[in-house]
Amino acid sequence: MKTTPRTLSGFMELLPAEQLVFNQILDVIRDSFESYGFVPLDTPVLEYADVLLAKAGGETEKQIYRFQKGDSDLCMRFDLTVPLSRYVAQHQNDITFPFRRYQIAKSYRGERPQKGRFREFYQADIDIIGNERLSIIHDAEVPAIMYGILRRLGLNRFRIKMNNRKLLNGFYQPLGLTKKATDILRIIDKFDKIGVDAVQDCLVDLSLSDDQIQSVLSFVQTSGTTDQVLSYLKGLNIQNESFQTAISELETVANALKTLGVPETHYQIDLKITRGLDYYTGTVYETYVEGHPNWGAICSGGRYDNLAENYTDRKMPGIGMSLGVTRFFDLLRGEGLLNFGKMTSAEVLVLPMDEDMSYACQVATVLRQGGIKTELYGATTKFKNKMNYANKIGVPFVAIIGEDERQNNLVSLKDMVSGNQTSIPLSDVVKFVFQKRSEQPEQPIILEVSRTSK
Amino acid sequence: MKTTPRTLSGFMELLPAEQLVFNQILDVIRDSFESYGFVPLDTPVLEYADVLLAKAGGETEKQIYRFQKGDSDLCMRFDLTVPLSRYVAQHQNDITFPFRRYQIAKSYRGERPQKGRFREFYQADIDIIGNERLSIIHDAEVPAIMYGILRRLGLNRFRIKMNNRKLLNGFYQPLGLTKKATDILRIIDKFDKIGVDAVQDCLVDLSLSDDQIQSVLSFVQTSGTTDQVLSYLKGLNIQNESFQTAISELETVANALKTLGVPETHYQIDLKITRGLDYYTGTVYETYVEGHPNWGAICSGGRYDNLAENYTDRKMPGIGMSLGVTRFFDLLRGEGLLNFGKMTSAEVLVLPMDEDMSYACQVATVLRQGGIKTELYGATTKFKNKMNYANKIGVPFVAIIGEDERQNNLVSLKDMVSGNQTSIPLSDVVKFVFQKRSEQPEQPIILEVSRTSK
Repeated sequence: MKTTPRTLSGFMELLPAEQLVFNQILDVIRDSFESYGFVPLDTPVLEYADVLLAKAGGETEKQIYRFQKGDSDLCMRFDLTVPLSRYVAQHQNDITFPFRRYQIAKSYRGERPQKGRFREFYQADIDIIGNERLSIIHDAEVPAIMYGILRRLGLNRFRIKMNNRKLLNGFYQPLGLTKKATDILRIIDKFDKIGVDAVQDCLVDLSLSDDQIQSVLSFVQTSGTTDQVLSYLKGLNIQNESFQTAISELETVANALKTLGVPETHYQIDLKITRGLDYYTGTVYETYVEGHPNWGAICSGGRYDNLAENYTDRKMPGIGMSLGVTRFFDLLRGEGLLNFGKMTSAEVLVLPMDEDMSYACQVATVLRQGGIKTELYGATTKFKNKMNYANKIGVPFVAIIGEDERQNNLVSLKDMVSGNQTSIPLSDVVKFVFQKRSEQPEQPIILEVSRTSK
Repeated sequence: MKTTPRTLSGFMELLPAEQLVFNQILDVIRDSFESYGFVPLDTPVLEYADVLLAKAGGETEKQIYRFQKGDSDLCMRFDLTVPLSRYVAQHQNDITFPFRRYQIAKSYRGERPQKGRFREFYQADIDIIGNERLSIIHDAEVPAIMYGILRRLGLNRFRIKMNNRKLLNGFYQPLGLTKKATDILRIIDKFDKIGVDAVQDCLVDLSLSDDQIQSVLSFVQTSGTTDQVLSYLKGLNIQNESFQTAISELETVANALKTLGVPETHYQIDLKITRGLDYYTGTVYETYVEGHPNWGAICSGGRYDNLAENYTDRKMPGIGMSLGVTRFFDLLRGEGLLNFGKMTSAEVLVLPMDEDMSYACQVATVLRQGGIKTELYGATTKFKNKMNYANKIGVPFVAIIGEDERQNNLVSLKDMVSGNQTSIPLSDVVKFVFQKRSEQPEQPIILEVSRTSK
């Protein structure tokens, strides 16, 4: 009896051509994080349930993969933020603050699978954690990194929208709405999903007066350039500290974004952005891809005052953003926006023409040591079958190794795109492939326009 | 009430300086796998229990993290080979054979933690899978890759020992021991652990005659150069097919290893190597680090006839090896053989001297876009504290940005090793750091002699 080979639903598993692209996305993310001087962390997938769930509750807790093993009550991590807070509290005396860490890893949620929701998913998280305090400049660094990643991936039409929680709290105070601030935030958070009328209804349900509702709606719908929105905010002349701090922080962040290389076309202050979670206390961000409103935010985050309060009395403010890589990949793939032709596992396939493989092995070794991904074909089969294999794996060059090549230390290199075949001394073959590679135009990973939809 | 932040025992978690080295080891492994044209796979950590345990039993099954979620009986993977066989069977019509895949990922075993045993551990696996048949040349490629990895990591004193299961089966046939072959293999597998006398006792327990025992012991203890061992084997004049095929395969693999760049100092035929598992059918390997016999084999594998027999009737022979990265790292660290000073998260730390950060942001952006890992220091504190921070994170260069630098588009770059400080135009700073970097001697990740033990 054979067991049917299958995977669990909600667990993405890719074929090689897709996996190569997925990993290339991870590489760009990692390289960008590292260029900003972040250190990698790799926390365990399994943790004690009481540790991971020190704060969680409600929906999150229901979705957790939790089980007993021996006497231990265990959980698979459901995000990378809780393990970070546990790590920072546990190792606080061994790490240096501000602590800049990235983690690109899988998390697990046993929720009902549905389109675009995964039970196992990669997140790419960066956070900068301070000891007692943390400079506002990092509130600009974090979105600047995410901007750089999306551009390097080939995406151009997106925007990082930001706001500041202190602004909202400061705004509600003179309206006498401080006590309802959290509830209002939650409603405003859904603005783009449910629309202005539904938001209005919700605010009525919260017993806001017509005037209060009009103030709130006109405030959150204010839009324009960064300068225009900042002018509007200053013009409101709301004198509480929270509001004024928020304006100053937004202004600092917006100015710093420019000097960090983010053009104003790619960020904006959007007073509707609140992020649902209590957690955030200052700057908040959500990133939207233009033309795909149904995708929602692909990359979000913000500033928090107290990362590890469940584990330690030490106050550790931080700023972070998270890119949901599995979901983003799935959305791009679904729209035909991924460039699957770009990557192959090998640049050269070495094809021995007869059973004496010694020179073919030598050629492969020279190429590999020269930094060229090289596959050695071992099967003794017809030439036609060998070329079929080369076509299937999409390799750009085939090195044909027969008796003539062996006796004269040559490599017959066939360009699989042009069909040209060149005979090259073994000592020049690495240089030749590098030259050909440098002549190829740089190709993006993400296509702005779907090739399949043309 | 605060929850005590802690991790489960048997789960390795590293501090940043260690994590940087660990990741660099993973990078070398991955880069080497890719240079041989392997494609990455990333199978789920969780699978259906009936799928993962289609073959398992006994000890393995007891160690599994297995639990129910809803109606599903789930397991965390305990190795990367079973998921590979499931993948290949499931996607056999969508992949191209020979299928060369690597996977560097965590597996899970809930065994009692003890020194050198982990419940969560990285394995780096490569396998080449054929459809019905697979060339013997790949039996040389796979250990050649592992050789290259260990050398690139800085390890020199190690040896890949190999044998061939067919040789052992062929040898036992004329002795009339075919039925006991598997039991004898299991005993011989422990030779280096338990020694010749204990092996002899075990063979007596198996009811072998004195002559049979002497034959077996003298055979498995034969040693010498590859040529000497091959001559000895040929001289035994055992004419069954299994024995003769094995000699021919060992000879082919040994010759190909040379052309693939592996010197004879680093491999040898060792007739005691059997690998415990039934699974293997041809070439088998174990890699030992000289001077550390108690480490056991750090990298093992072999040839199997039928990868996915639990899932499909299609015959898929393969060859593979696995490096237990977490265990290897732990052993090296335990002996002080890791070069923790080699890596830092940033190459340049940008230190703004006053509150105007705009030019400092610009400097950081130029460095980052130039490919230099750069951290921007945001806190406004005393110069001494800033330099303390630079020393703590071990950054090689500090870019001091004050009013003079800002007004003249300069960067004052302090070399933290020599103490020299140089004033450089912003447009030259990337070139300068690259130049300095190229003057640094290449440092290995693994030290052959412990620095701490000196």
